Amino acid sequence: VTGVVVSTGSEPGAEAAAGPPPRRVGIVGSGLIGASIGLALRSRGVEVLLSDVDAEQVKVAEAMGAGRLWAGEPVEHAVIAVPPHAVAGELRRLRRAGLANTVSDVASVKTKPIAEAVRAGCDLTSWCPAHPIAGRERGGAASARADLFVERTWVLCPLPHTSAQAVAATAAVALACGAQPIRTSARRHDRAMALLSHLPQVVASLLAAAIPDLDAADLALAGQGFRDTTRLADSDPGLWGSILEGNRGPVAARSRLLAADLVRLAEVLESGSADAAADAVRGVVARGNAARTRLPSKHGTPERAWAWVGVVLADRPGQLGSLFTSIGRWGVNVEDIAAFEHSLDSPAGIVEIAVAPDVADDLLDRLGAGGWTAYRRS
Amino acid sequence: VTGVVVSTGSEPGAEAAAGPPPRRVGIVGSGLIGASIGLALRSRGVEVLLSDVDAEQVKVAEAMGAGRLWAGEPVEHAVIAVPPHAVAGELRRLRRAGLANTVSDVASVKTKPIAEAVRAGCDLTSWCPAHPIAGRERGGAASARADLFVERTWVLCPLPHTSAQAVAATAAVALACGAQPIRTSARRHDRAMALLSHLPQVVASLLAAAIPDLDAADLALAGQGFRDTTRLADSDPGLWGSILEGNRGPVAARSRLLAADLVRLAEVLESGSADAAADAVRGVVARGNAARTRLPSKHGTPERAWAWVGVVLADRPGQLGSLFTSIGRWGVNVEDIAAFEHSLDSPAGIVEIAVAPDVADDLLDRLGAGGWTAYRRS
Repeated sequence: VTGVVVSTGSEPGAEAAAGPPPRRVGIVGSGLIGASIGLALRSRGVEVLLSDVDAEQVKVAEAMGAGRLWAGEPVEHAVIAVPPHAVAGELRRLRRAGLANTVSDVASVKTKPIAEAVRAGCDLTSWCPAHPIAGRERGGAASARADLFVERTWVLCPLPHTSAQAVAATAAVALACGAQPIRTSARRHDRAMALLSHLPQVVASLLAAAIPDLDAADLALAGQGFRDTTRLADSDPGLWGSILEGNRGPVAARSRLLAADLVRLAEVLESGSADAAADAVRGVVARGNAARTRLPSKHGTPERAWAWVGVVLADRPGQLGSLFTSIGRWGVNVEDIAAFEHSLDSPAGIVEIAVAPDVADDLLDRLGAGGWTAYRRS
Repeated sequence: VTGVVVSTGSEPGAEAAAGPPPRRVGIVGSGLIGASIGLALRSRGVEVLLSDVDAEQVKVAEAMGAGRLWAGEPVEHAVIAVPPHAVAGELRRLRRAGLANTVSDVASVKTKPIAEAVRAGCDLTSWCPAHPIAGRERGGAASARADLFVERTWVLCPLPHTSAQAVAATAAVALACGAQPIRTSARRHDRAMALLSHLPQVVASLLAAAIPDLDAADLALAGQGFRDTTRLADSDPGLWGSILEGNRGPVAARSRLLAADLVRLAEVLESGSADAAADAVRGVVARGNAARTRLPSKHGTPERAWAWVGVVLADRPGQLGSLFTSIGRWGVNVEDIAAFEHSLDSPAGIVEIAVAPDVADDLLDRLGAGGWTAYRRS
């Protein structure tokens, strides 16, 4: 992560230095994105003020350490972290109250909120439209994470009117969250997101929505591939109604292209020879293989590489307490937990634990000596 | 994992006891699945013999401890772990050489290999067609894992001719690998897999294949959702040519249904009012939300409706031990753990705990009294 806003292409005024983060930031909307920005900024010493139409969200975000209730104090910079259709309204409200020197937003579509802000006569000089590309299928403050934006892209789509001060403040917030600010146009952003985010959401939801076509017994055949491909289907309907409605043209065009590809493949499978059918599939899969290699790495830096250790648990109360008490006593910090597989029908479950790589071998030894069945996940 | 083969529905002879695993198993095909079965069986003390048309795969599998080269010794049971189109041929070869008492396979499609085996005049009494539902987007012996099948479903599709001995040996291999054997018909299996596995593969590959539509600069906007939804696109073209060609009718039908859904959504996005467009999207996403909850837990039994309680943790060793020790002392059984969010940058983390619904309120009270910040996940 550099201290410079990188342009994605031919945008004018591409490079802009970003300074330290604003000292006091107000966040409108304390859901997943707003609370995560709060957590990240707090860890950098920024004073964070939180608001939300849902008071419960602010309470949870406060308890997590994401900031404190915004009681109308003026701030250097405000982040509008609400669904796309509500951005222009919040922008106008903030301006009228005169609460923030500069403003950015986080909406996943850009063209439509900008058009709405222009139509509503909002002040455009103090606003830098933006979009941090990070999220989770589950929203709400309780899902917030301080590291949600680390190594992610934070897109800035400044308008011709946007002041250098607003761009710099937005980039500084992005950098303080560990993200890489990049700059592109609202139109390019929306066209790219139609393929990279909105169509995957549509497809995940449509695939999941077909589940009721199968009997419960047949669903026992669902493997990890189906779960992963439909993970996004757990997303919030209201939020996604706002996002996809806000990018109608590009999403519709992408949906039609995919539909045409599916029909073309169906035709070969139905009517082609066995060789032609296998050839067509091989072609599609091979093109996917090749294209995936063109995805950029997340800014060149490797993901934090934890070592994963799996432990088999007996199915009785107290097993987890006893396990984590031992791990705590050994001074090992648990970084993440995953893939806990366990039910009353099963004599045993598995809990997988992420730890720093240099303590994994020692942990395995200690677990083994303590009578646990443990293994290292490759 | 129980010692019984569970039927998925109306299949006759649904329950069959499975004994200990065969003492000597031969594996034809030492790729991801074959080598993983070898690793799992070796860890249970089974003698494993390995073969492959690619000698390199056997070498890698041997080095990993998955077994030793199969030099033509007779075995109790043979597992054919090759792509679907090659199953019938290997079945006939094994039978001619008289090497195995009973045989199973692992192909992801069942109807077509069975038809081919019937047409080729293979012996059907000693063969139990089967399919362990586990895999990775990376194939080859080097990707093999002893725990690949733990808590997964291993589908058995015995024919009317299949001997009880062949079914029992196949179920015993599945159980020895930590999987739950379930029984269904080849037709039901193939129809379910078209939705649960084959269509997700097609969609992942088609989405990934559209990447070249975007400039390299626009690809910087790809987030985790796109990476996850296209993860399967890294799969092997040759293997998937064989799988999808082997299940042409159901895959074509599923592809056409999804295409129709996509076109229907595109029409509303293009021509509907803003409200109608947002409504249509909300409907699709909400249907996906609801349907996803119908997916069973990983070994075939439906997930129970647990209540989820979230607890905010300070970032220091021992917090988890102290939490789970208290929970154990209160006699509350933890059914699942999820969404542990925590990093070195964050002042706090969240652990979410699934418990029986009737104890959730009491647990929340006790946690509050014990000084924990806890909430109920809606």
